[in-house]
Amino acid sequence: MTQHVLGVKEFPIQQFMLFPEHPGTPNTVRSVSMRSSLAGVSGATPTEEMNGAGNLMDFLDEPFPDVGTYEDFHTIDWLREKSRDTDRHRKITSKSKESIWELIKSLLDAWSGWVVMLLIGLLSGTLAGVIDLAVDWMTDLKEGVCLSAFWYSHEQCCWTSNETTFDDRDKCPQWQKWAELMTGHAEGAGAYVLNYFLYILWALLFSFLAVSLVRVFAPYACGSGIPEIKTILSGFIIRGYLGKWTLLIKTVTLVLAVSSGLSLGKEGPLVHVACCCGNLFCSLFSKYSKNEGKRREVLSAAAAAGVSVAFGAPIGGVLFSLEEVSYYFPLKTLWRSFFAALVAAFTLRSINPFGNSRLVLFYVEYHTPWYMAELVPFILLGVFGGLWGTLFIRANIAWCRRRKTTQLGKYPVLEVIAVTGITAVLAYPNPYTRRSTSELISELFNDCGALESSQLCDYINNPNMSRPVDDIPDRPAGPGVYTALWQLALALIFKIVITIFTFGMKIPSGLFIPSMAVGAIAGRIVGIAVEQMAYHHHDWIIFKNWCRPGADCVTPGLYAMVGAAACLGGVTRMTVSLVVIMFELTGGLEYIVPLMAAAVTSKWVADAFGKEGIYESHIQLNGYPYLDVRDEFTHRTLATDVMRPRRNDPPLAVLTQDSTTVEDVETLIKDTDYNGFPVVVSRESERLIGFVQRRDLTLAIKNARQKQDGVVSSSVVYFTEDAPQLPASNPQPLKLRRILNLSPFTVTDHTPMETVVDIFRKLGLRQRCHVSLCLRRRLLGIITKKDVLRHMAQMMNQDPESIMFN
Amino acid sequence: MTQHVLGVKEFPIQQFMLFPEHPGTPNTVRSVSMRSSLAGVSGATPTEEMNGAGNLMDFLDEPFPDVGTYEDFHTIDWLREKSRDTDRHRKITSKSKESIWELIKSLLDAWSGWVVMLLIGLLSGTLAGVIDLAVDWMTDLKEGVCLSAFWYSHEQCCWTSNETTFDDRDKCPQWQKWAELMTGHAEGAGAYVLNYFLYILWALLFSFLAVSLVRVFAPYACGSGIPEIKTILSGFIIRGYLGKWTLLIKTVTLVLAVSSGLSLGKEGPLVHVACCCGNLFCSLFSKYSKNEGKRREVLSAAAAAGVSVAFGAPIGGVLFSLEEVSYYFPLKTLWRSFFAALVAAFTLRSINPFGNSRLVLFYVEYHTPWYMAELVPFILLGVFGGLWGTLFIRANIAWCRRRKTTQLGKYPVLEVIAVTGITAVLAYPNPYTRRSTSELISELFNDCGALESSQLCDYINNPNMSRPVDDIPDRPAGPGVYTALWQLALALIFKIVITIFTFGMKIPSGLFIPSMAVGAIAGRIVGIAVEQMAYHHHDWIIFKNWCRPGADCVTPGLYAMVGAAACLGGVTRMTVSLVVIMFELTGGLEYIVPLMAAAVTSKWVADAFGKEGIYESHIQLNGYPYLDVRDEFTHRTLATDVMRPRRNDPPLAVLTQDSTTVEDVETLIKDTDYNGFPVVVSRESERLIGFVQRRDLTLAIKNARQKQDGVVSSSVVYFTEDAPQLPASNPQPLKLRRILNLSPFTVTDHTPMETVVDIFRKLGLRQRCHVSLCLRRRLLGIITKKDVLRHMAQMMNQDPESIMFN
Repeated sequence: MTQHVLGVKEFPIQQFMLFPEHPGTPNTVRSVSMRSSLAGVSGATPTEEMNGAGNLMDFLDEPFPDVGTYEDFHTIDWLREKSRDTDRHRKITSKSKESIWELIKSLLDAWSGWVVMLLIGLLSGTLAGVIDLAVDWMTDLKEGVCLSAFWYSHEQCCWTSNETTFDDRDKCPQWQKWAELMTGHAEGAGAYVLNYFLYILWALLFSFLAVSLVRVFAPYACGSGIPEIKTILSGFIIRGYLGKWTLLIKTVTLVLAVSSGLSLGKEGPLVHVACCCGNLFCSLFSKYSKNEGKRREVLSAAAAAGVSVAFGAPIGGVLFSLEEVSYYFPLKTLWRSFFAALVAAFTLRSINPFGNSRLVLFYVEYHTPWYMAELVPFILLGVFGGLWGTLFIRANIAWCRRRKTTQLGKYPVLEVIAVTGITAVLAYPNPYTRRSTSELISELFNDCGALESSQLCDYINNPNMSRPVDDIPDRPAGPGVYTALWQLALALIFKIVITIFTFGMKIPSGLFIPSMAVGAIAGRIVGIAVEQMAYHHHDWIIFKNWCRPGADCVTPGLYAMVGAAACLGGVTRMTVSLVVIMFELTGGLEYIVPLMAAAVTSKWVADAFGKEGIYESHIQLNGYPYLDVRDEFTHRTLATDVMRPRRNDPPLAVLTQDSTTVEDVETLIKDTDYNGFPVVVSRESERLIGFVQRRDLTLAIKNARQKQDGVVSSSVVYFTEDAPQLPASNPQPLKLRRILNLSPFTVTDHTPMETVVDIFRKLGLRQRCHVSLCLRRRLLGIITKKDVLRHMAQMMNQDPESIMFN
Repeated sequence: MTQHVLGVKEFPIQQFMLFPEHPGTPNTVRSVSMRSSLAGVSGATPTEEMNGAGNLMDFLDEPFPDVGTYEDFHTIDWLREKSRDTDRHRKITSKSKESIWELIKSLLDAWSGWVVMLLIGLLSGTLAGVIDLAVDWMTDLKEGVCLSAFWYSHEQCCWTSNETTFDDRDKCPQWQKWAELMTGHAEGAGAYVLNYFLYILWALLFSFLAVSLVRVFAPYACGSGIPEIKTILSGFIIRGYLGKWTLLIKTVTLVLAVSSGLSLGKEGPLVHVACCCGNLFCSLFSKYSKNEGKRREVLSAAAAAGVSVAFGAPIGGVLFSLEEVSYYFPLKTLWRSFFAALVAAFTLRSINPFGNSRLVLFYVEYHTPWYMAELVPFILLGVFGGLWGTLFIRANIAWCRRRKTTQLGKYPVLEVIAVTGITAVLAYPNPYTRRSTSELISELFNDCGALESSQLCDYINNPNMSRPVDDIPDRPAGPGVYTALWQLALALIFKIVITIFTFGMKIPSGLFIPSMAVGAIAGRIVGIAVEQMAYHHHDWIIFKNWCRPGADCVTPGLYAMVGAAACLGGVTRMTVSLVVIMFELTGGLEYIVPLMAAAVTSKWVADAFGKEGIYESHIQLNGYPYLDVRDEFTHRTLATDVMRPRRNDPPLAVLTQDSTTVEDVETLIKDTDYNGFPVVVSRESERLIGFVQRRDLTLAIKNARQKQDGVVSSSVVYFTEDAPQLPASNPQPLKLRRILNLSPFTVTDHTPMETVVDIFRKLGLRQRCHVSLCLRRRLLGIITKKDVLRHMAQMMNQDPESIMFN
């Protein structure tokens, strides 16, 4: 069994060197050395002379502009980023001893991490608050308007009302439905149809605006964003994905999409928004903007802040980032994430969008403990959650693949309009789907108190019974509850079907809320069923021990919560972070066991049908080069089976240290599309001395041609420490040792792939090369991250061509 | 800045190969090849023939008994353990397709991890409950006895009493102090002296028993255990440290030590006890007992269960294990730790040792929010905590070093008796030190309710004021509070001094409770001061905004809690887990900001004086080979500066693949004390083919001499795939390819040490070797974990000789 390293949270290597454990048969290497030159080791130009230890560091000094940056859709080199940061830090520390000003600068640098966290917390908290307020207002706008101030939501409008009970408050005179406002009639078939029509119209308007904005201004703003953020955090570059435009457009369109009543949530997109904030603030500090590794530390923390504001659960947010999103998660990031998540949560609380001073999205308080026997329905809910997760992932991926491959994908606006139309038409008649999904979940989670006026709490009260506020015994269900059950069952089917088609459309769409809604509906139905069974059959053995007549044994709201956790777990395969988020919602350790039982069951059931959660499935669908830490690699293949070139492939493209001309290099760059090239001593010995990046090579040659006199196509490129003193008639040599990585990673060809995969996950080299160990120090081949992914996919019988990027 | 990888949580390499990036000067290698032999590649004995891919796996099949196990005080090879587990798993999976019985066995195997977790949770929860009950009873035994049933503690004794108020209950007639029982007088100087005397006597008896038991039966049961567990989890073998005897003796002596009234807690030792449980249950399943890597996964989870029962904080326990204790923490372990921690917490709750159905050790409920201005005293408490942490660590380490190096260390029993005597003599007169430390902390944390009768709540009430139960306005302090303040100040000084001398004695001693007590006392004093200031100076600008007359603005109990967090943070440098544990105690997100402010300040202040927490300091003091993930390595040295042999050292001891005799090998093993030897092709070419462990070599030769005919001292040892066909007159060859590791780790000599340290932390190879890259494929030298630690210590100007083990 391979061990699942905690979200690997370490440097992934991108490429790999390989050397044979045995003297192997000679392997032809396509060397571009066209001229044989007697590279003397003496005669260095004094200006270029370096001592051995300094070489690598000089390489990090970025001798040419842009050397050390990455191209779009390429993977970063974690170890290089780290070593650049260490170098930068070293410089600052040594400078800080020189003057007070430098000391202050070094202190500012040390604190910049915390400043970035503070800013991320403040901005993402503020944005979340604004989004909440706007969504509230616009959701209600679909039904009516506040006469006293049109920018008030239904709830805010009626705050000032004089009605005291909750029920009456809902019908305060300041708030008017559209039909009432337009025709003066609040009731009747005409009013209903008019309201229905306007509801659909508003929904279509919102969703049209959302999809148009996304298409025109920021195509990256669509979807949940979590699959892409996972990929970015694992070291991939997607330029613009976390840009300012994406931030702005995603915030606006998220409000529109959620308000349109589509079956989607704001949690995933909020993580994306928070990461955009993180990226924005990174650009303020060169420490983060110039180092892709450090930037990813900030982004991990930003993701935590995103979940923190989405649910009001800072600890859960940090664990979510740790468990689900992040790839490299050092202890320092843990602490900073926590800080960012807390700042964000408190900023949100200060804005107080829910008007109740509560931090959490669904605040619940239960008054009854749970009993052992209830574990049976809880585990059944877990099974349901696992099945739902499997069904949803399979159906959604199938639909998304269809969208990608057929005509359907060409009309994203029409698709969104159509789905919104269907959603609105079907949702309006059912009171449980008409309202916003988070309101629905909130009501389902709620325990029926004495003052509750909801249809779900329509129980028949015993008139002789005194009614304490909290501890209400189980009662027989009234007609309202039965109606509610039917409506909920219909809502369940509707939600299950529509969510499959909604997730993946070209608008911001989160998955947490719809998944939780499905679970909460199922859970509440089960809860009411158990409650009524317990009430009507006190004498059954299972109820006898814990449910005396007149006691409050069953809390249907708890079932809803357990169901929500189960369904969310089935879809995302979150475990610890899910339970912690739920724990933060209830605030009591009391209910951790039911939640855990359901979450574990759901994960096991779902895992039995397929190991991948929805995010991993979408990563695979999109072909991102993501090396999942949870994929177990248990095959007995060796490095030699995976390395390139294969037996019948053309030989490996390498450079020689002192016999390649500029022209040769340019030809090689033009003819191949490799990310970099190993440098060997000579064509004959094929001994590896280092690895050079394609991008660095291109930039260095371009720079030299422009700025350095005498560098022409026939100039020899030297990777040695010293270039030979050439006669003046010869073209000037080009010395490129500074862009050479002198410590590439090597393994023998007999190394099990298991170890190779492990090293790829845990170390962050991008350089690739392999060196023969015996007789001749030959390069046997190269293993890149792409090779590893392709091999793993082959081993798992998946489509190897789905990995598109290198 | 080096990144702190989350508790590294990955495989650390133990040793390392090195090869030069350049053709270096020839380096003499002390080869033990005394005979030159023409090792033919043909002529393999058919029985020994293996295919290339199978080699490594065959090596894992443990060809000889004990091959693949480790000696005491050696470090494990994480990658080898992992690869063995993968192999085992692969076997079970392939077998499971054969029959239903094998399928059931494979399912049982897959579930054994969860079973172990369940058992650990149950046993550690039970033990914690028993310890709590026993400590309660024995602590009270020092003062008196219950007449109705001598095995009742004071509180249990008075439960059945008829007195209703809390104050009277304390003085129930069934409970008699010793003086009252013996002389019949409860009051007066004589009774006081007699009680005093008996208190000291009991304390001495308990501590004498504790230290004697530890000395006679289980020397490893002393101390907190966390430094050693950290070291064990990082891959070190300390046989018996987690054994059955240690478990039994530590449990018993922990009760005795805590009851004796010494300034120590049970939290650290509980982690040790839980880990012993983990180790115990590991031995039930060969999956865990035979694999040191898998065993460490279980131990990480057990540590989480230990903290979970110590504080009643399961999430905090998991985070503690993650942040503070564990080294390799895969996602699977996260989830299992959580399960174990929950089971343990619920087992403890079922035992209900505190008699209040509460899970947490210090349950608190505050009724007032905190105000922004209060952050100033909170941060001051953080500074105090940091200073206390620094003082404590320095003084304690100095004292422990003194104990190790001087005569003092030879009389552990006397030392314990002396410290107990002093503690008891000084503690009895002060009511705040006389009682158990956890009771003290509990009282200090408490908010003064209306029914509180404690001296700390002796405020002057306004007679005209109606007294609501919860929301009591600030009141002037009465004489009781002033007396309490003096006593607390004395208690603070006493605790600070005595804890320094207590921690590290030869009895089980935890550090959490004494640290928290120091912080809680300081915090409460500050809290009362602020409260009285706010009451008497309503008109000061800082109080004006938030503290109107008659309002309840300041909660001194919250200050105590913040102080406790600050001091604990200063000593242990915990951050997130500390805040989460505190959050679980209060159960409200409300107070996270004050706690975090104090914890961060305390960590920063303490870090300014020295990066190491108390556990790291003790690890260093004891010279354990622990590669701390939080040590930043920012020096510019290269692998070549660290490798052995150095320039003037004797050459590297290597074996040749086909020209070494059994006698040569035995001589080499006798003459050197290396953990293993590189195997090269021949003395001339010095090309590396693999690495062989000393232990495996010894075992293999011993085994061959006993069982294989014809193997004598002059037999040639072959590490090649095939041994040549020798004439019958020659001694039989010994084929040892199966114990050869064919994929040792190599780096070039120009690799920065930063990268090497990183690789050591993140991968788990134990093999060492280095190979020259150019011209000749030579081994340049070896870097072992020991070398790395020594180098890091040198770079930090620490005592390099303190690393004792290899």
